[in-house]
Amino acid sequence: MAGNSYGDIFKVTTFGESHGPAIGVIVDGVPPQIPLSEKDIQFDLDRRRPGQSKITTQRKESDTVEILSGVFEGQTTGTSLAMLIRNEDHRSKDYSNIKDIFRPGHADYTFQKKYGIRDYRGGGRSSGRETACRVAAGAVAKKILDLQNIKIIAYTLSVGSVEAKKIDHSVIEKNIVRAPDLAAAKRMVKKIDEARKNLDSIGGVVEARVHGTPVGLGDPVFGKLNAKLAYGLMSIGTIRGIEFGLGFDATEMLGSKHNDKFYLDGDRIRTRTNNAGGTLGGISTGEDILLRVAVKPPSSIASAQQTVNASGEDATIEVKGRHDPCICPRVVPVVEAMIALTLVDCLLLQKTISTS
Amino acid sequence: MAGNSYGDIFKVTTFGESHGPAIGVIVDGVPPQIPLSEKDIQFDLDRRRPGQSKITTQRKESDTVEILSGVFEGQTTGTSLAMLIRNEDHRSKDYSNIKDIFRPGHADYTFQKKYGIRDYRGGGRSSGRETACRVAAGAVAKKILDLQNIKIIAYTLSVGSVEAKKIDHSVIEKNIVRAPDLAAAKRMVKKIDEARKNLDSIGGVVEARVHGTPVGLGDPVFGKLNAKLAYGLMSIGTIRGIEFGLGFDATEMLGSKHNDKFYLDGDRIRTRTNNAGGTLGGISTGEDILLRVAVKPPSSIASAQQTVNASGEDATIEVKGRHDPCICPRVVPVVEAMIALTLVDCLLLQKTISTS
Amino acid sequence: MAGNSYGDIFKVTTFGESHGPAIGVIVDGVPPQIPLSEKDIQFDLDRRRPGQSKITTQRKESDTVEILSGVFEGQTTGTSLAMLIRNEDHRSKDYSNIKDIFRPGHADYTFQKKYGIRDYRGGGRSSGRETACRVAAGAVAKKILDLQNIKIIAYTLSVGSVEAKKIDHSVIEKNIVRAPDLAAAKRMVKKIDEARKNLDSIGGVVEARVHGTPVGLGDPVFGKLNAKLAYGLMSIGTIRGIEFGLGFDATEMLGSKHNDKFYLDGDRIRTRTNNAGGTLGGISTGEDILLRVAVKPPSSIASAQQTVNASGEDATIEVKGRHDPCICPRVVPVVEAMIALTLVDCLLLQKTISTS
Amino acid sequence: MAGNSYGDIFKVTTFGESHGPAIGVIVDGVPPQIPLSEKDIQFDLDRRRPGQSKITTQRKESDTVEILSGVFEGQTTGTSLAMLIRNEDHRSKDYSNIKDIFRPGHADYTFQKKYGIRDYRGGGRSSGRETACRVAAGAVAKKILDLQNIKIIAYTLSVGSVEAKKIDHSVIEKNIVRAPDLAAAKRMVKKIDEARKNLDSIGGVVEARVHGTPVGLGDPVFGKLNAKLAYGLMSIGTIRGIEFGLGFDATEMLGSKHNDKFYLDGDRIRTRTNNAGGTLGGISTGEDILLRVAVKPPSSIASAQQTVNASGEDATIEVKGRHDPCICPRVVPVVEAMIALTLVDCLLLQKTISTS
Repeated sequence: MAGNSYGDIFKVTTFGESHGPAIGVIVDGVPPQIPLSEKDIQFDLDRRRPGQSKITTQRKESDTVEILSGVFEGQTTGTSLAMLIRNEDHRSKDYSNIKDIFRPGHADYTFQKKYGIRDYRGGGRSSGRETACRVAAGAVAKKILDLQNIKIIAYTLSVGSVEAKKIDHSVIEKNIVRAPDLAAAKRMVKKIDEARKNLDSIGGVVEARVHGTPVGLGDPVFGKLNAKLAYGLMSIGTIRGIEFGLGFDATEMLGSKHNDKFYLDGDRIRTRTNNAGGTLGGISTGEDILLRVAVKPPSSIASAQQTVNASGEDATIEVKGRHDPCICPRVVPVVEAMIALTLVDCLLLQKTISTS
Repeated sequence: MAGNSYGDIFKVTTFGESHGPAIGVIVDGVPPQIPLSEKDIQFDLDRRRPGQSKITTQRKESDTVEILSGVFEGQTTGTSLAMLIRNEDHRSKDYSNIKDIFRPGHADYTFQKKYGIRDYRGGGRSSGRETACRVAAGAVAKKILDLQNIKIIAYTLSVGSVEAKKIDHSVIEKNIVRAPDLAAAKRMVKKIDEARKNLDSIGGVVEARVHGTPVGLGDPVFGKLNAKLAYGLMSIGTIRGIEFGLGFDATEMLGSKHNDKFYLDGDRIRTRTNNAGGTLGGISTGEDILLRVAVKPPSSIASAQQTVNASGEDATIEVKGRHDPCICPRVVPVVEAMIALTLVDCLLLQKTISTS
Repeated sequence: MAGNSYGDIFKVTTFGESHGPAIGVIVDGVPPQIPLSEKDIQFDLDRRRPGQSKITTQRKESDTVEILSGVFEGQTTGTSLAMLIRNEDHRSKDYSNIKDIFRPGHADYTFQKKYGIRDYRGGGRSSGRETACRVAAGAVAKKILDLQNIKIIAYTLSVGSVEAKKIDHSVIEKNIVRAPDLAAAKRMVKKIDEARKNLDSIGGVVEARVHGTPVGLGDPVFGKLNAKLAYGLMSIGTIRGIEFGLGFDATEMLGSKHNDKFYLDGDRIRTRTNNAGGTLGGISTGEDILLRVAVKPPSSIASAQQTVNASGEDATIEVKGRHDPCICPRVVPVVEAMIALTLVDCLLLQKTISTS
Repeated sequence: MAGNSYGDIFKVTTFGESHGPAIGVIVDGVPPQIPLSEKDIQFDLDRRRPGQSKITTQRKESDTVEILSGVFEGQTTGTSLAMLIRNEDHRSKDYSNIKDIFRPGHADYTFQKKYGIRDYRGGGRSSGRETACRVAAGAVAKKILDLQNIKIIAYTLSVGSVEAKKIDHSVIEKNIVRAPDLAAAKRMVKKIDEARKNLDSIGGVVEARVHGTPVGLGDPVFGKLNAKLAYGLMSIGTIRGIEFGLGFDATEMLGSKHNDKFYLDGDRIRTRTNNAGGTLGGISTGEDILLRVAVKPPSSIASAQQTVNASGEDATIEVKGRHDPCICPRVVPVVEAMIALTLVDCLLLQKTISTS
């Protein structure tokens, strides 16, 4: 309910504004005795960091994480784990012009109406900067998933109308757009560059696949695994849609084609296809979880836009500052983080079901 | 966390199996002094009821609701409101053949692996029958939304490849498929009939629009209104995807086109387009909330399917019983219910924000 | 938050008014494959039932429980377990005289002010009758505790100034006041009879002891085991205080006397005394949990009392109907139930801590 | 469930170990536009601070708070409010001797068994130092209560067998033991000094009174106001019992004496006595909330005690370091904080009940 928390057992609570002194996160419910250091966290933070390539914002933030509690002599203690990231590159002056103007596509207007006050500097609490905390917490979750050989892989499937034609996991971290297809990646980068030069931005699709999930995660009725994943992923500000397995394509299919047939593979029951995308009745089947999210074009664009000011008068705005022309490459680790947080929460919850 | 509850302030908890003695729901957090009777509930239950037309399952259930608590002299009391629906048409014999066989597309296998036991009769707890409880609770929520002039309308946008070409709200309840276009409705019914005759089933898309939402619902970061709606709607077993506003189409757009421009309409700030679908930064803008969900083809089909039994041996199954060849017409009130539950929860939560 | 729910993993939600058609409870989070039947529930319900002896209210309710869901072929299924108890002995006419009058010591006034409406019949939702649902849910919890050899024993330690002089568990269910001392029990019954004949009521102390709790239940900081027990027990309407171990007597002690010394007993670390009452730092030590609750004299008394009516005018009331002159004997199973619910919740939560 | 969080709407989550780099707290659900600065927080932190008088521990911590988020231009923004307190006086060497020894009365043993690991330095997460975070969050809550003229006053009612004979609020902050009676305060200080000189410690009773609570806070059944207060207060490590109104004394009373009679005082319905201590049916009556908590003698004493080490072997320990011989004076602000947090949570929750 408290909007800044996520998860039930493995519970994440975040704080911080884009241009305040720091952002941070508390993770409660971390199982004890898991090896953990700042280095484990920093790896994914660096993948989300601004300024990592020519197609991301050039804002400079080292996003250096400090663990404040919950780790003792290199291991988690089971008590609340806090992580702090100091903000370095404030440049608040960049944002003073938006104090009384509502930027199109941003949350300026809705925050102002909801709270009657807002920290307008760089979007304040509504800035995408808060996702660094998700990534930090997600890195802790990934350590736990690693112990169970559960692997999450996300990548940019398309940018605008440019789609990856093949899915080669090995190349994802070898191109700056994080696509699974090097040839398509080149075209995507070109597309993004084009948008940037036109003082514009562009959307895309990020796909994720989880391998190694045990059968039985997720709860029937409201607590379905796919419902929880949808909640977590849709809470990323830039995402406008999500689908599992065949998703919207399933709506044009016949049941006889869509139903995944069971068969015995060694000593394990599996399905010959995976149209469902890894869950049945909201519970994981053990097949790969497969999902795609729709990433909108970033709202911050440098070209002039018509809008209104706080008094409702017509105004023109050019969103200065340093922005991402396409957020897909930096959303990839955030998508992974939200999946990791959700899965660990379900894994821990599942322990309460087993009678042994 | 408890998988059978939904909502934080306006909290719904359901119980019941398809072929047990009854299903039911407790709604906690209902504001007091709201006029309510069984009749208010029954209206939507009848829209979800099996056997309501030739294109739905012919299973006979009157789905008569009994209010057991929380209403006194025609008004809610503020204490927990319980509603009971007795199951009438058990016919458990229809299902004895699936005791040891996993039906493709159903939750038989995942329930069995998760719990080590399952009530296999008609799907037990995993049956779509549980959605009657959502509809009953949703009817209470709708009474509250009515008082604030918030209206939810859902309809079948497409069945298979047959799409509605126009959106005329006045005809939705005048055709058995609940489409907003009578001509398209005829073609949809034909498509569904065809699937049924072929012992098959077919999917579709349900769209929903909410008019009258005040600005300010939903919480930043994890508690976004669209994230909560995605959670609630994706928890409906038959749904495989959701998108808001332009959804996946936004991924091919430029930011300059996608951003909704603000303008002053009388004394109210509005946007000229509604590509975002009613939220910015996860908070309602006051524009209509617009969303679409992907409804998969029902898993229960009468034609023979290959599968395995509980021992992993090959088996063939024909899912006997009386099933829906397309669930869209009956999902429409369930979609409305989940939206209503989510909105009331956010409305009540928003009261805690206002300083007055 | 929803006031009618209790517990996090093993989650109880209750409904029902004293004079409505029924009361009931949903238990979510029940582990699967636990043998359970109505008989298991009925045993404790009978211990709480009105009319069980001459010193309890003579209101007639068989309190027959019906399991509506969550049990299949004699075992729990892991899905939400619902239990229903129909109200039989309404006699609403007994209560019509209190429609517009606030009974001293009762919640009539506070409910009316909080909600602007109340079901005044027999106290409605504020009636102690709701504790039958706690006892029903508690009986399910006890089945789980039994599997782990955790035993809860509660008894009436004192009635007014009459105290038990010895603690003999074997006699508790052999006297109608549920005291652990037959000689004291006789004097207690006399004391209660005296109060009843004087159209009055009397308080007492109930003590509880839990044997067999493993080390490690409860969470540091806010989720302490003793804090959770205090929450659960203080939520019983009739209880005005609670203490653990030496409780208030500890406030007059020196630390050197109060600290329980550790020693090795076989292969188990124990403490030579148990002044702490079974927890250290909010986490169970493995020693017996020992607590006492203060039970106030029942508010319903037949003698004339000064009060005001809904308009604030002076009024006199004699609370007719059939009341308990001392509620201790019937509170004993309710105390056990709340302890059982709390312990099972902590036991299940503890499973999420273990790394294995 | 997450043991490090408290509250539902006004939600507090804390972190930090006694000898880690910092402790801190996130408060979510703070209403916007409340004037707030570090100075508001520091006042109560200073009342809890170690080294504040000769009868408290001489450990040196300035407990200087830094607000990291949620406040903009001197006002709360409605988003998550984070506060950080750096630890200054580590002196970890003081504690190295307890690495493998279980101190009597402390949580060393239970933490070790629960988690298999513990930060033993100064008690780590189980240290009373975490209450500084409660006090910081409580100071925010008090700002909100102030706006509604709700006042919380707590004081040391007794130390050992020395009791305050009168309750004069004006002298509480004028004596180092925080007693409401200057003459008794002198005797209490003497008692504490005596304990300290004997390398021992002593317990006491802290009483609290809340004036100005509106009628209607708290929820029936499990969410009773007194139950929530009991939960919050019992979660303070040093507290072993709690009672409301007459508390345990009520157990020896007749109902005719115990029931508080209603009367009309001007236009307000009140009770002539307040034996109930401010709630009826778990809902506030508008009379003062009155409660007392039993504070145990501190477990840390410098005299030699018998115990065991981690291997279960006999050991002797003298708890070196700088400890409080009686914690009552420093518990007073913590008690106030937990009451403030609970009341604000209930106040905000009550907004969801009102139909206007």
